[in-house]
Amino acid sequence: MKIDVIFTQTTSQDYSVYIDELTQLTLNTKVLIVTNTTVQKLHLQTLLTALKTNECFVVALPDGESYKNFETLSQILEACFEHRLDRKSLLIAFGGGVIGDMTGFAASIYQRGINFIQVPTTLLSQVDASVGGKTGINNAYGKNLIGSFWQPQAVYCETTFLKTLPPREFSAGVAEIIKMAVTFDKDFFQWLETHDLSVDENLKMAIAKSIETKARVVSMDEREEGIRAVLNYGHTFAHVIENQTKYTTYLHGEAVAIGMVMANKLACKLGLLSLEEAKRIQTLLERYALPTAYAIPCVEAFYDAFFLDKKSAHAKIKFILAKGIGGHLISDNVPKELVLESLKEIHV
Amino acid sequence: MKIDVIFTQTTSQDYSVYIDELTQLTLNTKVLIVTNTTVQKLHLQTLLTALKTNECFVVALPDGESYKNFETLSQILEACFEHRLDRKSLLIAFGGGVIGDMTGFAASIYQRGINFIQVPTTLLSQVDASVGGKTGINNAYGKNLIGSFWQPQAVYCETTFLKTLPPREFSAGVAEIIKMAVTFDKDFFQWLETHDLSVDENLKMAIAKSIETKARVVSMDEREEGIRAVLNYGHTFAHVIENQTKYTTYLHGEAVAIGMVMANKLACKLGLLSLEEAKRIQTLLERYALPTAYAIPCVEAFYDAFFLDKKSAHAKIKFILAKGIGGHLISDNVPKELVLESLKEIHV
Repeated sequence: MKIDVIFTQTTSQDYSVYIDELTQLTLNTKVLIVTNTTVQKLHLQTLLTALKTNECFVVALPDGESYKNFETLSQILEACFEHRLDRKSLLIAFGGGVIGDMTGFAASIYQRGINFIQVPTTLLSQVDASVGGKTGINNAYGKNLIGSFWQPQAVYCETTFLKTLPPREFSAGVAEIIKMAVTFDKDFFQWLETHDLSVDENLKMAIAKSIETKARVVSMDEREEGIRAVLNYGHTFAHVIENQTKYTTYLHGEAVAIGMVMANKLACKLGLLSLEEAKRIQTLLERYALPTAYAIPCVEAFYDAFFLDKKSAHAKIKFILAKGIGGHLISDNVPKELVLESLKEIHV
Repeated sequence: MKIDVIFTQTTSQDYSVYIDELTQLTLNTKVLIVTNTTVQKLHLQTLLTALKTNECFVVALPDGESYKNFETLSQILEACFEHRLDRKSLLIAFGGGVIGDMTGFAASIYQRGINFIQVPTTLLSQVDASVGGKTGINNAYGKNLIGSFWQPQAVYCETTFLKTLPPREFSAGVAEIIKMAVTFDKDFFQWLETHDLSVDENLKMAIAKSIETKARVVSMDEREEGIRAVLNYGHTFAHVIENQTKYTTYLHGEAVAIGMVMANKLACKLGLLSLEEAKRIQTLLERYALPTAYAIPCVEAFYDAFFLDKKSAHAKIKFILAKGIGGHLISDNVPKELVLESLKEIHV
């Protein structure tokens, strides 16, 4: 299956996302596979068997978001120099979002930019992170604050890699699938309500549908000057939750699930979403055992934390809200009191 | 005076280069000026007086190519975080090529890319480095091996800043002016033969002419896939010279001057340039006290060093040769013997 990402506003390279077509991949250049030690053990042999290349090297990094930093980025660059990669060489990001973000960033700055291919191995990175060209690393000031927009040459999603995912990671990926449906596609949402994603065929369909949606959005707004921000539905809240819990309690997708419920409370207050619609979304999230409540230590502090988020240029918070199921609204003038009220409601 | 840089193949932002129009610069955003301690002492006050901004910060880095590394880049990024620059903020690169390359690189990766303006203070950076969007830092493996293509929002060249340049640095800038004339513009070369660049008016004219040439070339080929490589005339040789002398003996422009003479020897052997034309070029270089000879320790080792240059993808050396005065040829199949012969001739 093949989905095209075509940039309509910029001339970033257009590319395609392939689902279950990895064996078709032939590369006539020097390749460096960037992976982590977990994925290396589980799936590297599968990739090496499928791939046809002339000259191929592997660098395996430690696994985890805590390694998404400059030191690990340097390890990738060091491997590029060591294996004498040139401007025509290629990196393959083989892992989840952390590997994809760091490999893409390394590709964007090695010799002022070389090509890379995404082979995402988690559901979350297949449906979201691997498409769209956001790259970056974290630092003491926050997440993804150093990075670039750098599009891959292609994305290969293999559902076979998802078989080994722990259930929580699987569900975290489903949260982003639900996110796409809620904000962009009513029919897809209804389909999700009636189809079980633990069935292979359904999962493949949901992945394709999510990628199509993401591809359409980033095609229109590569650099997030408008509609692409809608993909951050649930994320403004999630970032604060992740921060307050030091990234140890929730997986990113789990925090997003809670964040969507929070955003929905606000949308209900603003008359954008009915209580019944909010309930349907929450029910779907809960079906995949996703968390939908969070004990906010202090509602005022939670609110203040929004302003530390880089996405709030000029100290206005941009809320991404569901406008019915399948619609969205970006608002930067939501009254503070309404936000506080919503936060108090979710307070468990 | 205003010269436009318009990207015909990519959608990098088009921008303009202004000569002696700094007082026209008004900025309605948060600004961080990146400079070095030398330029800070000599010219920062002039810049601050000319500039109209709301909120302006300064970071002054140590001066010199040896500081064009990751540590200094981190200092720039740290200042961005410290002053809470957001996606709408702006960096100003205020200094020579080192400051321009590092500031541009920092701008390209801070929050996935913010705008920057070049205010080059050396002749070399005014006529060459500040236009075209090449950014980068050096590392143990070589020069500019980590970086990006990131275009400034505007370039402001002020001839007043050149008054304090040491004579050698002035001449090093003239070498790049001569480079443009030799490879692209016969009339400009003849004009240079008959006009003294120590005269203000002539200098301004030569700067404008060089920028026009550079702008035209990068407009056609931003990412150096073709004609932009001609701007490396003299540089393939210069890089080896700089490497062998550990960047301590020659300024970059001086090494380029020697490199042009070397390239010309080769061009003469290939019948592309007459001995008389080569002589005219050498005479013009010498008029500005630029070096035109270099004691090659070992001709074979010099040749082998070409292959360490990143610009030689797939182990073929691309020679940039003058084809008469005002013309050029890129060749990647020059016989090794001819190169060795040329090198032997220059051997003093």
